[in-house]
Amino acid sequence: MPNRGKVYLVGAGPGDPELLTLKARRALDEADVIVYDRLVSKEIMDLIPPGTPRINVGKQPRSHHVPQGEINELLVRLARLGRRVVRLKGGDPYLFGRGSEEAAYLRRHGIVVAAVPGVTSASACAAALGVPLTHRGYANGVRFITGHCCAANELDDDPRPLHGPRQHLPGIDQAGRQRTLADDPGGGDLRRHPA
Amino acid sequence: MPNRGKVYLVGAGPGDPELLTLKARRALDEADVIVYDRLVSKEIMDLIPPGTPRINVGKQPRSHHVPQGEINELLVRLARLGRRVVRLKGGDPYLFGRGSEEAAYLRRHGIVVAAVPGVTSASACAAALGVPLTHRGYANGVRFITGHCCAANELDDDPRPLHGPRQHLPGIDQAGRQRTLADDPGGGDLRRHPA
Repeated sequence: MPNRGKVYLVGAGPGDPELLTLKARRALDEADVIVYDRLVSKEIMDLIPPGTPRINVGKQPRSHHVPQGEINELLVRLARLGRRVVRLKGGDPYLFGRGSEEAAYLRRHGIVVAAVPGVTSASACAAALGVPLTHRGYANGVRFITGHCCAANELDDDPRPLHGPRQHLPGIDQAGRQRTLADDPGGGDLRRHPA
Repeated sequence: MPNRGKVYLVGAGPGDPELLTLKARRALDEADVIVYDRLVSKEIMDLIPPGTPRINVGKQPRSHHVPQGEINELLVRLARLGRRVVRLKGGDPYLFGRGSEEAAYLRRHGIVVAAVPGVTSASACAAALGVPLTHRGYANGVRFITGHCCAANELDDDPRPLHGPRQHLPGIDQAGRQRTLADDPGGGDLRRHPA
């Protein structure tokens, strides 16, 4: 019998449970196990059926993150046990976060992966504040950049030239370099949100 | 008695009804009238309760679009009649489309406006194709630009410099200049989708 194990990379959106997609909500209802991180809100975690096991890979007891390699191995192990695994991530799984690294690792190990997109926090902030990301005649495009980088690969973006003509630079993902960018007067109005 | 009329700018997402947010779905269920355009899929329109009036402002009988000024006036008129109006737009209401223009006009006329963000098509395409928008070490940011501009304000973006180091340029909104950009070998891989 084929192994029905599968990993769903699910975007939880910006935190408001009402901004989950119908598909994400269904994935939570049907999951055998949820693997989640610190950018998923308590309100969303509260929607998960009480009997569904959940594994927090965002923080360990002494505030250490679970290394990415361990998360990858955990997802493979659960899928090989035949579980429907929901890997729940703040924002959108393929916009920042490490959804694509996890998907690539899983596929290399023969695990079936599906992704459920989510509302990005930039969109949610724009809607909440009434500040558009684009506006004809003022901004005909928008850029999302990370404020965080892996050790092997320094950010090569100086934030100043990112302010192109009529291009908005609305937000920055994650912690890391956030203060550096926010302190730079060319760095725009930077907030900390999941993607 | 205060007028309860209000306009909800609702992002319908990329077309799959399952990628509506729970909040968008509720707005459709509770609306007194739906004003929608051509980028909203038939499958999503089919979710609207059969008794809810709907107004298509995407095309008129002889394939003319309703001018933006008329859409703005229609929304004001419906809200002043005390209606809960859902202005349903493809993708995200504040990322391309003209959500921000409509919101500004409505607010200038004293109408209460709320926005419900949606999944952008770029996220949905990334999820469907398994191609991430960002990936550590390869792309630490992403740009969304329009391929369309208003007559008074030409696009001043040459697409070539938009390919910064480790920046993805995944998609283009609307029709308009699409072919020009797609034919440009520096213009990236451009698809036609709602924002």
